[in-house]
Amino acid sequence: MSKHLETAQNLKDKLLEAENILLFPHIGIDGDAVGSCCALIWALRKKGKNAYALYEEDMPGNLMFLTDDPEGKPCFTSDRDIISDEDLDVAMAVDCGELKRFPAYRDKFLGAPVKLVLDHHGTSLKEPLGDFNMIDPDAAAAGVLMYWLLSLIEGAVTDRYIGQCLFSAIVTDTGRFQYSNTNRECWEIMSELSSWGCDFVRASTELYESKREEQVRITAYAINKMTVSEDGRWAVTTLSKEELDAMGVRAGETDEIVGEMRSVKGVEVSVFLREVENNVIRVSYRSKYFVDVASLASKHGGGGHLRAAGATLYMSLAEAERIILDDLKNYFSN
Amino acid sequence: MSKHLETAQNLKDKLLEAENILLFPHIGIDGDAVGSCCALIWALRKKGKNAYALYEEDMPGNLMFLTDDPEGKPCFTSDRDIISDEDLDVAMAVDCGELKRFPAYRDKFLGAPVKLVLDHHGTSLKEPLGDFNMIDPDAAAAGVLMYWLLSLIEGAVTDRYIGQCLFSAIVTDTGRFQYSNTNRECWEIMSELSSWGCDFVRASTELYESKREEQVRITAYAINKMTVSEDGRWAVTTLSKEELDAMGVRAGETDEIVGEMRSVKGVEVSVFLREVENNVIRVSYRSKYFVDVASLASKHGGGGHLRAAGATLYMSLAEAERIILDDLKNYFSN
Repeated sequence: MSKHLETAQNLKDKLLEAENILLFPHIGIDGDAVGSCCALIWALRKKGKNAYALYEEDMPGNLMFLTDDPEGKPCFTSDRDIISDEDLDVAMAVDCGELKRFPAYRDKFLGAPVKLVLDHHGTSLKEPLGDFNMIDPDAAAAGVLMYWLLSLIEGAVTDRYIGQCLFSAIVTDTGRFQYSNTNRECWEIMSELSSWGCDFVRASTELYESKREEQVRITAYAINKMTVSEDGRWAVTTLSKEELDAMGVRAGETDEIVGEMRSVKGVEVSVFLREVENNVIRVSYRSKYFVDVASLASKHGGGGHLRAAGATLYMSLAEAERIILDDLKNYFSN
Repeated sequence: MSKHLETAQNLKDKLLEAENILLFPHIGIDGDAVGSCCALIWALRKKGKNAYALYEEDMPGNLMFLTDDPEGKPCFTSDRDIISDEDLDVAMAVDCGELKRFPAYRDKFLGAPVKLVLDHHGTSLKEPLGDFNMIDPDAAAAGVLMYWLLSLIEGAVTDRYIGQCLFSAIVTDTGRFQYSNTNRECWEIMSELSSWGCDFVRASTELYESKREEQVRITAYAINKMTVSEDGRWAVTTLSKEELDAMGVRAGETDEIVGEMRSVKGVEVSVFLREVENNVIRVSYRSKYFVDVASLASKHGGGGHLRAAGATLYMSLAEAERIILDDLKNYFSN
């Protein structure tokens, strides 16, 4: 039996006692947050509850196939008054555990009589945010924890929409089962979900083959102009604001570039520089096997993980590129 | 218990009675054939057998991390006399079931006193090729069948190299678990393999992030110049022999282009034309949800599957492109 079922029980009880429930996913929303929210919202609506997720930023296009429930009702809204402060029974943070992860709605969350957290991220908080918390950094995805929570809610198990939501949550947060967070629990849940008769082919196609033409073109364009070092150990490319605007690229649509560069054999570190606005350069780092890119990024006030990190440089694109190239040359000459 | 264990038993008996065993993977070798062969060869070598796979063409670079066994001995050879005709005890076709799939070695196979087949492809043969056959078109990959066969061979289960080989076989043949052949059995085997402590992160990185720079660049180049129809329902790109030669591209390194075009939202059919030599144009088709591209390809003497097909046109690249564009315009105007 999963170690998660005990904490799940508390969350389930509070959710099923409530009438009006709001979920709070994190800014920079992703497949895990969307899939986890939609799965729970539909399970709750099937039990007659009034449930929504609050989110005010743009929704990534490849996740839109999930965001209406099977009756066509949206799961997400930016309207904080869709449930009034008086009526709100339960607020639940999903795929995050700190107020700064949903800044626009922190007061709404704090005003709820019952606060829950379902998350798989580490946190610097001394006390968890919720009255009841289902937090496990060893879980590959929030979708994994959501799977266990939903296993306790009648009508959720074997629901194909819920299965597709949970599949999407887990497949995206594990990088298609490629990242090191992928563990046996993921495979077991996939096995179970596949027995529900979900259309994973459609979900994968929506997730990975529904990019705007602009995204596919800007990626090819950036790769076309990448620089690979003479020894083949690093690769760098840049996009200016002018180039981005000329191609009509939206937020998030350059996310694959840095990983695509890393897919070159022998390339250990790839770096992508994007001119967000004049003298504001967003730098994304990836490494393959051994370089700690969080420490490379921290030189410029950034940070992140061992193999994926970022920083922002306040200077011209040309200047930033020169600094990054110097960093890489120094790193690999030592 | 798996339905495959009964047929696996016969193959296992013949393999363990033998001393000298040759495997016959198919031309145009892929991750499934390589992974399945290497897994079995190492299991047999651990039992003191003399085992090799015969293959004379180039090995795809991203599979090279599998082709030496854990003691550093190659699993593949092009030398048909590595085991003499007199010494050969068992010949086994792997991931194929017809002689035309390994034409260079058909006589060697036919000369063996015991012939086995392990395959998951359909066939037009009236009788299976082997004395004993483990053939199931419902299996997602040869690696799935190999998993069951190896589950009967002592020392194979929990071997990390074998686990990595089987993982590679299954993940590649299911398109990273995206194709419709992905079924519950795949997930269950993944769950089992992950408990063996295999390094799937390394395997995925080798399989998907170890492309030659030329491959990454030619893909970007071809995408950069693709044509997307006005209604956004199809995309076409071409590469001339001159372009391919100028960029130093090898066989197989243009394989991702047609799928990359299909990843554009709304694109139902993508077609990639490659000038193999003067007046020989290889055409690759993909579709997303509903178009039967095998029938489009069959107009030109080609064929394949519903969503992936190919044909060869004997004319100039410009002429071939015009014909393909006409085909697509006609198809989508009806």
